[in-house]
Order: sequence, then C-alpha cells, then structure tokens
Amino acid sequence: RKTYRIAVIPGDGIGKETVPEGLRVLDAAARRFGFDLQLAHYDWSCETYRQTGRMMPEDGLDRLRDSDSIFLGAVGWPGVPDHISLWGLLIPIRRGFDQYVNLRPCRLMPGVRTPLAGRGPEDIDFYVVRENTEGEYSSVGGRMFEGTEREFVTQESVFTRQGVDRVLRYAFELAMTRPRRKVTSATKSNGITLTMPYWDERFAAMARNYPEVTTDQYHIDILCAHFVQHPDWFDVVVGSNLFGDILSDLGPAVAGSIGIAPSANINPERRFPSMFEPVHGSAPDIAGKGICNPIGQIWSGAMMLEHLGEKAAADAILGAIEALLAQGGPRTRDMGGQAATVDVGKALAEAV
Amino acid sequence: RKTYRIAVIPGDGIGKETVPEGLRVLDAAARRFGFDLQLAHYDWSCETYRQTGRMMPEDGLDRLRDSDSIFLGAVGWPGVPDHISLWGLLIPIRRGFDQYVNLRPCRLMPGVRTPLAGRGPEDIDFYVVRENTEGEYSSVGGRMFEGTEREFVTQESVFTRQGVDRVLRYAFELAMTRPRRKVTSATKSNGITLTMPYWDERFAAMARNYPEVTTDQYHIDILCAHFVQHPDWFDVVVGSNLFGDILSDLGPAVAGSIGIAPSANINPERRFPSMFEPVHGSAPDIAGKGICNPIGQIWSGAMMLEHLGEKAAADAILGAIEALLAQGGPRTRDMGGQAATVDVGKALAEAV
Ligand SMILES: CC(C)[C@H](C(=O)O)[C@@H](O)C(=O)O
Ligand SMILES: CC(C)[C@H](C(=O)O)[C@@H](O)C(=O)O
Repeated sequence: RKTYRIAVIPGDGIGKETVPEGLRVLDAAARRFGFDLQLAHYDWSCETYRQTGRMMPEDGLDRLRDSDSIFLGAVGWPGVPDHISLWGLLIPIRRGFDQYVNLRPCRLMPGVRTPLAGRGPEDIDFYVVRENTEGEYSSVGGRMFEGTEREFVTQESVFTRQGVDRVLRYAFELAMTRPRRKVTSATKSNGITLTMPYWDERFAAMARNYPEVTTDQYHIDILCAHFVQHPDWFDVVVGSNLFGDILSDLGPAVAGSIGIAPSANINPERRFPSMFEPVHGSAPDIAGKGICNPIGQIWSGAMMLEHLGEKAAADAILGAIEALLAQGGPRTRDMGGQAATVDVGKALAEAV
Repeated sequence: RKTYRIAVIPGDGIGKETVPEGLRVLDAAARRFGFDLQLAHYDWSCETYRQTGRMMPEDGLDRLRDSDSIFLGAVGWPGVPDHISLWGLLIPIRRGFDQYVNLRPCRLMPGVRTPLAGRGPEDIDFYVVRENTEGEYSSVGGRMFEGTEREFVTQESVFTRQGVDRVLRYAFELAMTRPRRKVTSATKSNGITLTMPYWDERFAAMARNYPEVTTDQYHIDILCAHFVQHPDWFDVVVGSNLFGDILSDLGPAVAGSIGIAPSANINPERRFPSMFEPVHGSAPDIAGKGICNPIGQIWSGAMMLEHLGEKAAADAILGAIEALLAQGGPRTRDMGGQAATVDVGKALAEAV
C-alpha cells in the first residue's frame, strides 16, 4: 500500500476553511483507491508572523523538503504587507523547491456561468504554463535620488537559457499529451525589445524539437484580447512569470472559474516537492463565515494526486466536481447557491 | 479662421486605406465648423525602409515638429522586423515628442456586439491612461554568455518620479472632468517588488491632491479578470507602459470595439505635437482590398480635433459614428456587414 507524505499549510483566511474540505475529499479518494496520506500540518500564516516575526521558521523549507507534495490554502492578510506574507512563505517555497512550472487549467465546466456570450464547455479548455522562478519577478534593482525630484527606481527582468528552455519544454511535452497538440507563446518582443526577442528565439528553437506540435505566438496585449474573443483558439499557452500570471487569472475569468480554479507549482524533475494551491486568495471579506467555495482547493487536490501518480483517483475527484456543477449539486454563494463550505466538501467526498 | 497644420502619415497596410477616410471626415468637419486643415503628407513606411534603409529620414522628427498634430495610420509589415518598423517610426515619435500619455477610450457603443453576456452601453465606458515613454519599454540591459548554456538576458524597467507623477496627474485631471471621478491604478507590487511599490507610493501621494476623486488599485492579473467580469467598475484606469498596453487592448476587446478603437499619444504641455492613431495594426491579411474598417481612424480624428480645441467638431464626428453603429448604417465585414471602407467614410462625412 502506497503512502504519500503531504505537508499541509492552510495559511490565512479562507485557506483555513478550504483546506479541511480538500483533505476530506483527498481522504475519501485514498480510501476508495487504496493509498495512504500521511499528513504533516503547518500553521504558518500571517498570525505566525505576528507572533514570531516570521511567516515560517528559519528552517521552514527543510521541514517540507521530504514531503511528496505540499497542499497550500491561501497566503495574505490585511495589515501584513505582501512583501512579508507572500515573500516570506509562498515565493520562497516556489523558488526554494525550484517549482519552475506553474500550471493552471482554464476550463469552462458544464453548469458554470461564463461572462462570455454564447460560449460552451467545448470552447474553453486549455492550460496556462507559467514560468515560476525568474523573469520579471526579480530581486535585482533599486532606488536612487530617494525623496528628490530626480528619484527613480529600476528592476531588472532576468531570463536565463536554462530557465526559459525548461518551461518551454514542459509546455511542449504537455501539448504532446493533448489531442490538439498546440502551443501558443505569449510575447511582447515589439515593445520589450531585449528580453522578449530572446524568449521568442528559444521558443522557435524548442519548437524545432517538436515537429508534431503546432505553434503560434501573440503579443501579450492582443493575446489578452483573444482570450476574450477567441478562447477556443488555445490549447497550451506558455508565458513568462508575469505574462503567465496575467493569463492564468484572465483564463479562469473568461471560463467563469476564477473562484474554483486550481494551480500546481511543479518541480518536474521531482528533486523537490511540488505545491498545489487554488488560484483564489485568502478572501478576508468572507473568511471565517463558512461560506467560501472549496472547489478550487479540492481541484488542486486532484492535480496533486495526478502528480503523485494516482491518476484514477484524480479523475474521480474531477468527475465528482463536474457532476456536482452540471447537476446542480450544493453551491456556495459565489456560484449563486446557499450551501456552506462543508456541504460542498461533503457532497464531493461522498461522490468520490 | 483657424488653421491647423496636420502631419499625415498613413504608414503601412490598411493605414493607407483608413487615413484617406479619416481625412474625408475631418475635412467635412472643418467645412461645417469653420476651420482649416493644412495637411503635410509623409509616405514613411516599411516601403520607405526597403528603399532607403530607414523608416523615416534622419531629420524626420524635425519635419514634424511644427505640426499642430500628427495623424497616423498603422506601422508594420511582414518581412520588416518590429524593432525596425516600430522602433524606427512609431516609438521615436512617441518618445521624441514626449507624448507621455497614451489615452484610449473603452466604450461599448450602441449597436456594437460585445463578447460579454448581458452587457449594454451603460456598463462599459472608461478610459485607459497609459504611460507612454518609460517603464518596461526600456533600452537598458543586454545579453551575456551568448550561445552557451549559461546565456541570459536582462532588461531593466525604469520608473522616474517625473515620469510617474505626470501620467498620474493626467489621469486624476481626466477623472475630475467625468461624473464618477474615479481612478483605478494597475499595479503588481506583490510580485514586481521594486518598481511597482514605487508606483503605488506615487499613486497614493497624487491621490492626496485630489480628495474629490475616488481611488482603488488592483494587481494587473486580477484587474484583467475584473475587466471581463466587472467592466462597469471602471472610470479612469491608469497603468505603466506595459500594463497600460495590455489594458488598452483588453478594454476595447470586452467592449467589442477592438477594430474601431482610437488612441491619442499626448504631450499635455503642448511643447510638441501629439499623435492620433487607431488601436488596430496594419492588417496585412486584408490590406489593399478596400474592406477594412475606417472607424478607428475616424474616431482618432475626433480625438485630434478635441485636442486641438474643436470640441463641437469632435462631438459631431463621434455622434455620427454612434448614429451609424446604432442605426445600422453601412458596416464593413468585421462588423458583419458588406460595405467597403469608402462607403463608411462617405456615410460619416455626410452625417457630419
Ligand atoms: C506596436 C507596439 C510597440 C505598440 C506598443 O506596445 O506600444 C502597440 O501595441 C500599441 O499599443 O500601440
Ligand atoms: C500573490 C502573488 C505574488 C502571486 C503571483 O503573482 O505569483 C499570485 O498572483 C499568483 O498568481 O499565485
């Protein structure tokens, strides 16, 4: 009987409510499909920061290092600036464990309302593959002439061959597993004329290794427009840290799934644990009320099981989510229902 | 009788077809409202580049310098790389004439189809104010270890106090002229942690000068999502060069107006001429066929007249566009009609 060690970090706000439901469904899947989950709980959060001055202990990464996966809720709370909360927990894990792929499915699920007119589930079903460690999210730069009229700030985007090639390779490999076999690259080489032409160059070079894959590329401005106008054009969309960030919020928005979208921060070589978290944040406005939607967390759990090799269990969870949405099962307020967070979790656990 | 000196640059592709229609309508407005347009035509384009090795002559900017405004079609043609075509004509004019505001209206016009479900003209009516000279579009950076595995590229974003403050001021001044008096700032200070916090700082400082203006700010990822989900939230949206670029394509996309949207590159102090151009590009696929939509160009002409102080004439053109769209006047193919470019131009000139 297989056992997976899962590090569980609910984090802040509604993360504390969605993670238990995620675990409930994971537990049901483990029982049904015959594997064990060995959970290690970490209460790292903005509260920890208030008490200890740190989001996680100094040896935080070491404590997580032996896990098979990390299951994260949400990070961030009013009063704690992002550069402390996110850069003290979320970003160090992504970088420390070289989770260089951020993978986000954008799917219009049957029964979900999209803001787009006349679009159905067959029109929106693609992945955004985001570079997750370098690019525009850099720590090089600074401020000069502070406090004067001459003041200015700089920040350097950094793209390495290694960093670019490996995420592109992941995108092409993913496309090879899908019927359409298409990769779209997000660029802006007409405006950002030093780094983005390099991205284009590496994209063209990588494409030569995958003659079976169709490719195209768009500048990020018009690509965002196409997400709205032609979501059916896309299969696998690959972008830099910033462009991938933008597209992986816009994609779920057009699919009507921003409240339920999952994401995976993956170290494909499995030298380090990968991390699974919903796209939504800690939602301070509704936290603590038991009304938040746990589907993003539960779907992230399905991605985690798939990554661990439990494909049948992952499919069962995804199938349960699809059925619940399509057949009008319990829905939380954000989806027009009245159900509590636990109602949705229980319904999905049962269905699995 | 007032005379305005207009430099006319049709540029490439459909620019050669839209600009004549733009001039036709401007001419009608001039006759009706009693002013003169003194046109100077420049054939600078990718063709010029092929013949002379330059997109415009070395003293190009000097030739334009005394104009009251520049009326531009579109720049770019297959076979000529963007860093030559755009960076040899469009970008040098924006920068050389310190056109630090790129202003783009996003309006759902009556009679126009939006890709969004259930949205009407009252839901989408805002401006994107884009910084147009610095930020992410910088020329600082480079490549190292070229051709090896260690290869990397960098590009520095540069935000100056002067550059940030002046575009923010423009956005607040614009909001003061509008009934809702609201400014939304596009940021990403949770990820781009050196430059974007500075942007936020200056935004907060500027807001203190305008107590009558309501403000909010969103990270660019969720802001793009909100454009799709809640376009009615926005009045004036201000962003950096890159974020403004993205939002000013996404905004017209949600308004269904990407084929007809205008833009103004403005030097508010009027030390230099401002430039008016449609948002769309040179559209090589339909160029030369006489079927492209001239409305973006004509609407840009209206923005030009407003900038020149001919508000009544500008309103007349805009009114003519609104009436044509609402009342099913001649439409080009992109809007589901059969009309030729000239039909639309003539109809609008007549209506003015
Ligand atoms: C062509 C390109 C350089 C330009 C830009 O990004 O500024 C265009 O997208 C625009 O918005 O005018
Ligand atoms: C919170 C923020 C730093 C983060 C990011 O930009 O990476 C978030 O938007 C995300 O997409 O996970």
